[in-house]
Amino acid sequence: MTKKPKWVIEKERASKAETVWLFGLHAVRDALSNPVRVKQRLILTRNAADRLADVLPEIDMTPEIADPRKFPAPLDPGSVHQGAALEVKPLDWGPVEAHLPRLGPRGVMLALDRVTDPHNVGAVLRSAEVFGATAVLATARHAAPETGALAKTASGALERQPYLRVRNLAVALEELKAAGVVTIGLDGEAEADLPDALEPLADRPVALVLGAEGPGLREKTRETCDILARIPFSGGFGSLNVSNAAAVSLYAAQRR
Amino acid sequence: MTKKPKWVIEKERASKAETVWLFGLHAVRDALSNPVRVKQRLILTRNAADRLADVLPEIDMTPEIADPRKFPAPLDPGSVHQGAALEVKPLDWGPVEAHLPRLGPRGVMLALDRVTDPHNVGAVLRSAEVFGATAVLATARHAAPETGALAKTASGALERQPYLRVRNLAVALEELKAAGVVTIGLDGEAEADLPDALEPLADRPVALVLGAEGPGLREKTRETCDILARIPFSGGFGSLNVSNAAAVSLYAAQRR
Repeated sequence: MTKKPKWVIEKERASKAETVWLFGLHAVRDALSNPVRVKQRLILTRNAADRLADVLPEIDMTPEIADPRKFPAPLDPGSVHQGAALEVKPLDWGPVEAHLPRLGPRGVMLALDRVTDPHNVGAVLRSAEVFGATAVLATARHAAPETGALAKTASGALERQPYLRVRNLAVALEELKAAGVVTIGLDGEAEADLPDALEPLADRPVALVLGAEGPGLREKTRETCDILARIPFSGGFGSLNVSNAAAVSLYAAQRR
Repeated sequence: MTKKPKWVIEKERASKAETVWLFGLHAVRDALSNPVRVKQRLILTRNAADRLADVLPEIDMTPEIADPRKFPAPLDPGSVHQGAALEVKPLDWGPVEAHLPRLGPRGVMLALDRVTDPHNVGAVLRSAEVFGATAVLATARHAAPETGALAKTASGALERQPYLRVRNLAVALEELKAAGVVTIGLDGEAEADLPDALEPLADRPVALVLGAEGPGLREKTRETCDILARIPFSGGFGSLNVSNAAAVSLYAAQRR
């Protein structure tokens, strides 16, 4: 028996890679319009097919038309699918270094340290796209995977905003630092205020690093960052939700 | 038959007012610690009672201890209740004018125009508290009611951040304007950038008015605002989630 060539093994592995069901008219429309998205199965109600009539002729795929009362896609019971479901492969955005050439002198990246809630990550991707962030980094494990719920919260941004899963966040941050990126960890206990920390960095690319609510940044992540800074606030109680902290940080970085 | 005095009618009406089930250790703890919160029924698992042991002696209420497998509170199936549920009356924050004395010369209010998603409103209340907003206004109808899901997303802020429901938003905004508050409607199509609009208002109280995703501000709301402004962004696609737009606006107003 001959050994399979590497490319065959890789192709087989890729075809076995887990698929994800995207749902909802907006998420399905954006995935259908994304030429690099590998699509496997499209299930639509007659009504949803009518509402997607503008994109269906452009894709090389015949939808299965389903009865809305017996919608056959394996979705969570609470999912508002609007009669549209699309089985896809997760996107492969390639390694971090592939994105560095797009990071201009005032570029911004985001890095998420173990943020596992898909709604939070979806909202972060959406804000990252609005503020023109180059990419959002997250760990391969202990991070929200690409799911239908994430895609729906991202409101289309999942198809366009690079979401890179790295094996080791500290190593990826070191890689960014070596490329001239200033890494700023957001930390409610930090002494520096974020706008003050950003002020001297008007012509430097920055990476904003956010931790999960509760635990915050891991010790190793904190040590790896060039600067720790906090979002200034006046309230005596509470902290921002991670997606709101990301939006405020992106805005502050854009205004530097 | 004698006519009931007005206070009796009002008391009866209040006691019939709909109750809400709060759930989750954080939301239940904060509601138990809130002296003005009217509490009706507390259901805890033995484990949750242990974890709330510090606050239970301070309240005038005996918890019903429940089996976690047969948790009797009427919650949505997907609710992560952590063994704690508390039936309460919605909070009554009184009229808008009651909050104006707390609004200093650099004070900030938020107004939500038909934002109905409880998770979004919960996140807005949380950010409003962090940035020290005086109150969050919303319409009595077509707005997210105080629910367990809203309370959980607000992460305790529901107990502390005034959430005022007004009958007519335009009338309430006129009331704010008459009190010297500058009303700023957030509108992606506006010509003015929010930070530019805020710059001359360093010593004026402001109200930031946000609409629901999709429809945005209603025509009447838009006409009532003193200024329309947009959050500056560089992306060609998408728009911010309403809670992220609120957080960025609050930050920008605080930095004016």
